[in-house]
Amino acid sequence: MRLIADNLQMTLPPLDRAVDNRDPGPIRRQVSALEAAGAEAIDINTGPLGRAAVDKMTFIVDAVQQSTVLPLVVDTANPEAMAAGVKACHNPLIINGFSLEPAKLERILPLAVERDADIVGYLLSPEGHVPKQMEDRLSLAVDLIQAATDAGLPMKRLIIDPVVAPVTWEEGITRNRDLLSILRHLPDLLGVEVRTMAGLSNLTTGHANRHQKVCLEQAMVPMLAEAGLSMMMLNIFHTQTVRTAQTSRLLTGESLFTWSSVPC
Amino acid sequence: MRLIADNLQMTLPPLDRAVDNRDPGPIRRQVSALEAAGAEAIDINTGPLGRAAVDKMTFIVDAVQQSTVLPLVVDTANPEAMAAGVKACHNPLIINGFSLEPAKLERILPLAVERDADIVGYLLSPEGHVPKQMEDRLSLAVDLIQAATDAGLPMKRLIIDPVVAPVTWEEGITRNRDLLSILRHLPDLLGVEVRTMAGLSNLTTGHANRHQKVCLEQAMVPMLAEAGLSMMMLNIFHTQTVRTAQTSRLLTGESLFTWSSVPC
Repeated sequence: MRLIADNLQMTLPPLDRAVDNRDPGPIRRQVSALEAAGAEAIDINTGPLGRAAVDKMTFIVDAVQQSTVLPLVVDTANPEAMAAGVKACHNPLIINGFSLEPAKLERILPLAVERDADIVGYLLSPEGHVPKQMEDRLSLAVDLIQAATDAGLPMKRLIIDPVVAPVTWEEGITRNRDLLSILRHLPDLLGVEVRTMAGLSNLTTGHANRHQKVCLEQAMVPMLAEAGLSMMMLNIFHTQTVRTAQTSRLLTGESLFTWSSVPC
Repeated sequence: MRLIADNLQMTLPPLDRAVDNRDPGPIRRQVSALEAAGAEAIDINTGPLGRAAVDKMTFIVDAVQQSTVLPLVVDTANPEAMAAGVKACHNPLIINGFSLEPAKLERILPLAVERDADIVGYLLSPEGHVPKQMEDRLSLAVDLIQAATDAGLPMKRLIIDPVVAPVTWEEGITRNRDLLSILRHLPDLLGVEVRTMAGLSNLTTGHANRHQKVCLEQAMVPMLAEAGLSMMMLNIFHTQTVRTAQTSRLLTGESLFTWSSVPC
């Protein structure tokens, strides 16, 4: 279970200013801090890029690459900006991402095929919703794989994200229990191994109390690890959550157990 | 997933002295502390009782009951002492426990049948070993249920403990992954629901660093909860582990989710 930092959000005022001033310093420092905190990949969440989107994206990806050789997860809904990010990226690349929404199928998915890059596919309806029923979510997985295959994407490039529900959503708890079942059942359902991703911060989105967020994350992470999740996007500055994730990998056998590898 | 404190160990010097002096005070104070820390049942681990075993056990159970109405888990390998503990216990009772070891089948199991009490059955070979292969452990479950049924124990009284392996055992990690599979597969294998128990302290037995112990426990607990474990015996003074267990119950749907029920 690879840990992807979701902290590089360009809407944060210091980073937003850095982009406006084309000053790579604050971005580089943030990236170094993420890597020091345990990040094994960096999500570049640009937010709305406004004018000069292509130029800004190119600058951001360049700035990040000045600090790290980690894989980059380029995360924007703007197809022109995504194309610019893909072009600028020399590190290992994950495109984030597409779904059955027509605009994503038409404008984002082909970028992964052209570049032969990994891409995240979300189990969202064409209208952008998470279905209530697990069966409908599994059915979206089948449709998503079909769409990816039709577009010429090799299966090994696909990373399925079943979408973590906020605990405060109606039936959020049930939906996340279903998510664990989906992770377990996908290989059997699809007849092939497929990598998976989940965004942990979604679990407590909008909630203010950091201790409670971390407590919920610490309980959710081992469940995700044990269900076979391949990649987890999270706030990498939640130190206790990161430690629990690293320890979970010892218990699932993903990392070799030694006492010196227990992080606490 | 009910939390059973494993801290009431009569081999601890202050408790050992209290028993020798027939002074209930230290025992009562310890029990109150366990309950305040989140215990939902109390394991009474007598250790070797030596001479006057029956008298000592009666005294201990009486002392514990002066402080709590929680279920008591009476934990001794001495059949006479167990009979005395069962007789003295007016709180809800769990007998801990039996296995396919002939002495346990002959002397401990019948006590549960006579009293109509819950009893823990360990997935150990007749010689007291944990088999290496998951199939052999599942086969022990079938044999254990057969033995319990033959003795006249109703299935609802049986609590199966598949035995947590220390991480330092050869293949300890694999054995605990198997344990999670056993918890998931028991209902299908047996064709009935059966309650389960696990002793979490076993995971890090013999290790000195408390932080590392807690870190491993915090990663293991949500996996056990999600696999459907009914009861977990643990060091109830490991506050972070207890909080993770309580939070896991929110995520499995066992407890109703509200922000005020997130313990951190």
